Amino acid sequence: MITSALFHRPESEYAYLIDSTHLVLRFRTAKDDVTRVQALAGETYLIDEGWYDQPFEMNKYLSTKNFDYWNITIEFPGKRASYAFVAFDEAGEKVFFGDQGIFADSHEVRAHANNYFRLPYFHQIDMVKTPEWVKSTIWYQIFPERFANGNHDNDPAGVKIWNSADHPTREDFYGGDLQGVIDHLDHLVDLGINGLYLCPIFKAHSNHKYDTIDYLEIDQDFGDKETFRRLVQEAHKRGIKVMLDAVFNHMGDLSTQWQDVLENGADSRFADWFHVNKFPATYNETADFEHATDITYDTFAFTPHMPKLNTANPDVQKYLLQVATYWIDQFDIDAWRLDVANEVDHHFWHEFATACRAQKKDFYILGEIWHSSQSWLNGDQFDAVMNYAYTDAILNYFIFKQTDFETLQDQINSQLVLYRDPINEVQFNVLDSHDTPRLLTQAKDNLTLMQQTMAFTFLQPGVPCIYYGDEYAMTGAMDPDNRKPMVWDEDQQDLEQYAFVKKLIEFRKNNQKLLSAGSISWSGNEQVAIFTRQLDGKQIVGFFNTSGVEQNVPSGKILLQNNAQEANNEIILGADSFAILEV
Amino acid sequence: MITSALFHRPESEYAYLIDSTHLVLRFRTAKDDVTRVQALAGETYLIDEGWYDQPFEMNKYLSTKNFDYWNITIEFPGKRASYAFVAFDEAGEKVFFGDQGIFADSHEVRAHANNYFRLPYFHQIDMVKTPEWVKSTIWYQIFPERFANGNHDNDPAGVKIWNSADHPTREDFYGGDLQGVIDHLDHLVDLGINGLYLCPIFKAHSNHKYDTIDYLEIDQDFGDKETFRRLVQEAHKRGIKVMLDAVFNHMGDLSTQWQDVLENGADSRFADWFHVNKFPATYNETADFEHATDITYDTFAFTPHMPKLNTANPDVQKYLLQVATYWIDQFDIDAWRLDVANEVDHHFWHEFATACRAQKKDFYILGEIWHSSQSWLNGDQFDAVMNYAYTDAILNYFIFKQTDFETLQDQINSQLVLYRDPINEVQFNVLDSHDTPRLLTQAKDNLTLMQQTMAFTFLQPGVPCIYYGDEYAMTGAMDPDNRKPMVWDEDQQDLEQYAFVKKLIEFRKNNQKLLSAGSISWSGNEQVAIFTRQLDGKQIVGFFNTSGVEQNVPSGKILLQNNAQEANNEIILGADSFAILEV
Repeated sequence: MITSALFHRPESEYAYLIDSTHLVLRFRTAKDDVTRVQALAGETYLIDEGWYDQPFEMNKYLSTKNFDYWNITIEFPGKRASYAFVAFDEAGEKVFFGDQGIFADSHEVRAHANNYFRLPYFHQIDMVKTPEWVKSTIWYQIFPERFANGNHDNDPAGVKIWNSADHPTREDFYGGDLQGVIDHLDHLVDLGINGLYLCPIFKAHSNHKYDTIDYLEIDQDFGDKETFRRLVQEAHKRGIKVMLDAVFNHMGDLSTQWQDVLENGADSRFADWFHVNKFPATYNETADFEHATDITYDTFAFTPHMPKLNTANPDVQKYLLQVATYWIDQFDIDAWRLDVANEVDHHFWHEFATACRAQKKDFYILGEIWHSSQSWLNGDQFDAVMNYAYTDAILNYFIFKQTDFETLQDQINSQLVLYRDPINEVQFNVLDSHDTPRLLTQAKDNLTLMQQTMAFTFLQPGVPCIYYGDEYAMTGAMDPDNRKPMVWDEDQQDLEQYAFVKKLIEFRKNNQKLLSAGSISWSGNEQVAIFTRQLDGKQIVGFFNTSGVEQNVPSGKILLQNNAQEANNEIILGADSFAILEV
Repeated sequence: MITSALFHRPESEYAYLIDSTHLVLRFRTAKDDVTRVQALAGETYLIDEGWYDQPFEMNKYLSTKNFDYWNITIEFPGKRASYAFVAFDEAGEKVFFGDQGIFADSHEVRAHANNYFRLPYFHQIDMVKTPEWVKSTIWYQIFPERFANGNHDNDPAGVKIWNSADHPTREDFYGGDLQGVIDHLDHLVDLGINGLYLCPIFKAHSNHKYDTIDYLEIDQDFGDKETFRRLVQEAHKRGIKVMLDAVFNHMGDLSTQWQDVLENGADSRFADWFHVNKFPATYNETADFEHATDITYDTFAFTPHMPKLNTANPDVQKYLLQVATYWIDQFDIDAWRLDVANEVDHHFWHEFATACRAQKKDFYILGEIWHSSQSWLNGDQFDAVMNYAYTDAILNYFIFKQTDFETLQDQINSQLVLYRDPINEVQFNVLDSHDTPRLLTQAKDNLTLMQQTMAFTFLQPGVPCIYYGDEYAMTGAMDPDNRKPMVWDEDQQDLEQYAFVKKLIEFRKNNQKLLSAGSISWSGNEQVAIFTRQLDGKQIVGFFNTSGVEQNVPSGKILLQNNAQEANNEIILGADSFAILEV
């Protein structure tokens, strides 16, 4: 047995509560090395009763290239758990793995209380709880300047003509606003959307509004507070939740606070609101507006116009927490998406989460983090992150054809075992956004392939998000080209894609419980990827033809497909097509 | 290469800041499997400059039976780190280990930003900082009822005659009190003590006072608040810090709060202060005062007289935080030791730590936890735990002879790699306490062996604690026998042991910086254990004869020894003796 591969970490994604008496245990072994794993588990203070001689068989539930992961959910009525693991291999070796390390399994080892990991007492206040409503949410991301112009009175100067075929530059304005969003809520309802993610709407200089000037004002180009209040009310009336985008890592350099620092230097009352390494706060301009190499203050990346906020300063904390709760308390928003969330301190996010959840118990907090995010997903900070590492695995396989099927399984399963299941079920799965090229463009305009990729993503435990316009097959290269004005001209809309996305959403909603919580298994090969979800005896199987040529797969009750035909008790999948069956 | 043994976890004991720009990185490989590890590391946003081609060589610093641990401290002036590892084996295999898993090392893999782990921004507010003063502290644990009777006016009824040869029962009272502690502070100063750990002193029923009745009152048998204030003042005058013992997991059943629950059941205003599973709160007595099997409320273990507090209740939180800060603010205490700390929720401990540190910046928080404690030692809760797992490894080898030398190294090193170094340097190393038999009794009255074991412990990074009376070689079996009245009769005091302990403390203080932060290495065998600490070119080597017969070791500048003699350029170590040299 490769004993050096055995792994467990108490009070982490390897051991977590799901209610007041049930503990989920996870254990890792080297791939195909161990035939069986048992959990020895019982009430800490009753070890003398010998519960370790009634082991629990663990279930091998996910595998990566290097590892097998085993799990089990065990009830502890006494709310105090001691546990360890016994791994068996084919050769008959039997190894005890516990808090003091690895031992040959024996009665003496089992009977020794200190050899066990502990969850000392089951505290629900420490349990990771994620909002139930998110699991059944289909998000829709809106870049407000480009979604719809509902009110010409607030158009910025020099507004361009709304043309979805345009290739916008970084400086263009098209006049999209909040009234435009309200006007099209019924479009979203028709599509099946029940969660709205709005990119920043607060007063800012740029068209993307990530350079906040005032977090307590709606940008004048987008409307006013009354319009926003109506937006939330109208959305809620339609069962749609509203998520705003908070940029707390940095401010725009046109903010009162930063302007005061520029004017008064170290004497500014806002001097400690930022990370100024040396006064005066200066830099020399380069050809690139968003880049300088000699900035005397910390910024987002090397962008002189985005000075980094000092969130360790109690005044800054107080201000930002006031902002966070103001929009919940006064406007009833349901979620915050947090920009550059990884570069803000954990201490602040803890205070932030506490404040938001005090306002609204089932508030959803989503961080923008592109790498492994365990430190933020332990219950006291975020509910989820923008799951780019997860969707990258999907894109690399289905769209870019850069990885093989084993790698897809490895990457997806590796991401799933990074977090607790209640987190996985509310992870935010984006295939494209204002920060990436559009999916159809990535797919080189292959709409069938785009649909296949979306269908695979909708089968995952995390929740999907549709970037505005993808439902009409909009295209766009990297930023700023991915921010074209929404296609409202009916002649330009791809209605077949619209019908597909609508059916896809309906499928997800009809099977949400299974898709959120069901077990995951993989089969298939480089020609046809087969992905299966199962819960309470119900099983859904997706077949994805990645071979480039027609493939036949077994027939069954088709829940959703594109470019698939039934014939002779088989389903013929065209190139890049898929079929999802209930089996 | 055993790639499944490779391990790193971002933002944990494997990656932590030590100041605003220095990051410590740790990496794990299978034992003796890898010849070399490099860290690829640089400023996240400058990866295009190719810093991954200037790798940092890591240092193999600790090994266990299964693993080698590598580390390095790297400066990141830009405060944003990306990093990964490259492991080399003898066969020439070269493996890249990063945030997306394991790859064959290549330029393409190195150049891909998502392949790196991150510390996205260096926030000092999230950094684990432990109080500097603790590192140079020699603690002394006092069980107040048994240390000294300084005031006969507060003797409890039925007080027994002070006799250090007595074998106390669970119910005995001897009249020890706070004035007694004050009277003997100069004894402690003479010994070299600079930290006092007092078992509970608050109003309670038992002689051990772990069944608190009122956390805001000094127990009447021990004195009053004025006496305690004088105790702290007199201690501080002498450079001695004071740590009190807080029992926040449960209360005594004679407390007003619990009595109200008994009287008013579910209608009590304190009904939600505890975990009553079913009203009325009852149990049937058994022959064992501290045990019942049908208790309708959660307790400490199965002790009906210690109902567990509901620390998720905001009223309870408010009350206990008031207690915590009252004794800091009003009496200037320096530390809290937290009883049964593992069974109280993390949420509460986070609030607790925040409140205590707001009162006193370098306050020390010590939890009683007997198992692996990573969840409490991430900076936002405790500074250290009572390091029983660590000292058990020492006792099992030196005192009980149950383990071999390889196991000692394995167990000690395994404990050290559980935590960040700033934590290891303030871990609380107890060889005995009011909860264990006395060390000399464990050593079957072999004082030489006791001294050898103490000397080995004083060489560790964590800080030592002496249980009252050990400096006079007191004996005592398990609780309550370990709580004999202190030996103040000079005829009964072992003055040789006193002189030894005094020298041992002096040695620790003279070499504190090296003993706190120095590197650790092991050599020797089953006859003589050799333990080396090194810092800034200075090296201290301890030789410990565990063979049962005389052993010769190389000569040198002897800093401390027992039963060792120099002859012919060698040192002759008697059975169970030791010598510590500067080399």
